[in-house]
Amino acid sequence: MDAIGRKRWAIAEGHIPSQSSFTDRALISHETACILNAAAASRTLRSPSSLPTAIRSAPTGLRYRRGALLHLRFNDLTEPSPVPRDTDFSSVFESDVPIVVQHTRLDSRHAEVSLLSTTAYGES
Amino acid sequence: MDAIGRKRWAIAEGHIPSQSSFTDRALISHETACILNAAAASRTLRSPSSLPTAIRSAPTGLRYRRGALLHLRFNDLTEPSPVPRDTDFSSVFESDVPIVVQHTRLDSRHAEVSLLSTTAYGES
Amino acid sequence: MDAIGRKRWAIAEGHIPSQSSFTDRALISHETACILNAAAASRTLRSPSSLPTAIRSAPTGLRYRRGALLHLRFNDLTEPSPVPRDTDFSSVFESDVPIVVQHTRLDSRHAEVSLLSTTAYGES
Amino acid sequence: MDAIGRKRWAIAEGHIPSQSSFTDRALISHETACILNAAAASRTLRSPSSLPTAIRSAPTGLRYRRGALLHLRFNDLTEPSPVPRDTDFSSVFESDVPIVVQHTRLDSRHAEVSLLSTTAYGES
Repeated sequence: MDAIGRKRWAIAEGHIPSQSSFTDRALISHETACILNAAAASRTLRSPSSLPTAIRSAPTGLRYRRGALLHLRFNDLTEPSPVPRDTDFSSVFESDVPIVVQHTRLDSRHAEVSLLSTTAYGES
Repeated sequence: MDAIGRKRWAIAEGHIPSQSSFTDRALISHETACILNAAAASRTLRSPSSLPTAIRSAPTGLRYRRGALLHLRFNDLTEPSPVPRDTDFSSVFESDVPIVVQHTRLDSRHAEVSLLSTTAYGES
Repeated sequence: MDAIGRKRWAIAEGHIPSQSSFTDRALISHETACILNAAAASRTLRSPSSLPTAIRSAPTGLRYRRGALLHLRFNDLTEPSPVPRDTDFSSVFESDVPIVVQHTRLDSRHAEVSLLSTTAYGES
Repeated sequence: MDAIGRKRWAIAEGHIPSQSSFTDRALISHETACILNAAAASRTLRSPSSLPTAIRSAPTGLRYRRGALLHLRFNDLTEPSPVPRDTDFSSVFESDVPIVVQHTRLDSRHAEVSLLSTTAYGES
């Protein structure tokens, strides 16, 4: 699969609520940066977190492939220090290959789940 | 209608919850890639999933048209294999005509509905 | 204020739920395209839907201005026909001046409100 | 850290609900523009609202840094006048250095929290 993306990305907004209504890891308030390295799909597909390549033909000549993904959960970062909760932060990513970055937050401070997501800002 | 868009698109984030609070198809937890092929509007409009073209004049000289849409629901993909639930994935689209791709998730794991959406990352 | 934006925009995703848990117009399930015409701010500011211009100096030399806005609610479109509910659609905007378009949905099918929003795809 | 971003940004959508289900500042209905000035990280890191720089090596050669952030809460603006509630508005930012802008709303009109967020539209 050919590379797609840019090498430098920024997420201006970051905020991890300290409270959660659930103890299930998937439902604890968290933020992630999903980082797609499309060119490395054949290699990354061997890792547990990735999926078999899928190609789908659609009427318009569209092809679809599942890509290789690094799911970076900000809650889990420990170096050089954990990300403080209830505190605004932002992040910048630099890669030596083209990548695509998407930012997502799950907020479960109350008994429901709220989501936000956006493609980050990328630059060559 | 003239073409608008790019030929290669990537969605870094993907995650379909296995749980849903509803059995109505519209409210089952799902992810979609909405794929607009503006140039094919006159043809696609004949399909059930599309709409008559609308043109609206606004004070600033703005014209508005409803476009032709392929609504790709990741839950429904079966080739070469279904998308596993509760698993991170990402996707890359390649088209032989310019398209525009938007990513959306509906999460109904609990008794409410949560939504996220973003324009995907596009490249020529 | 100088112009900012592009002249052609596309929103791939569109879907207005037919159900709402509220009768207040602001809380009825709806979709909007918010269309900013920054260059027309001085003129548009005379309309009821816009705001006085604000300029704010921040430490980094940042200036902030409230802009001129056309809030296009898809639910209200009647020409050439209303937008069907519970049906996928997409939209393309063409303007004779640079604009910026942002897509938003409020979904109140259940007793809570869900939101999604994204900057649309723009092209010169 | 090298600069990343653009000098002019626009957020087409803006709307602050006048109602909130909570009195906690973090949960009052609000909108923010998160403004990242990556180049100023070393300076901005001295301010209370920013974080120590973090660099993380990932398998793909990815480096991650927490950046310098200005969290502009539209609810708090007072010059030249407060932003009216329940009213559509939009905003334009001009900076003398490259920045990245992300728009976020928290809506707590009902007893749950709804979120939306998107990278704004940027231009050189």
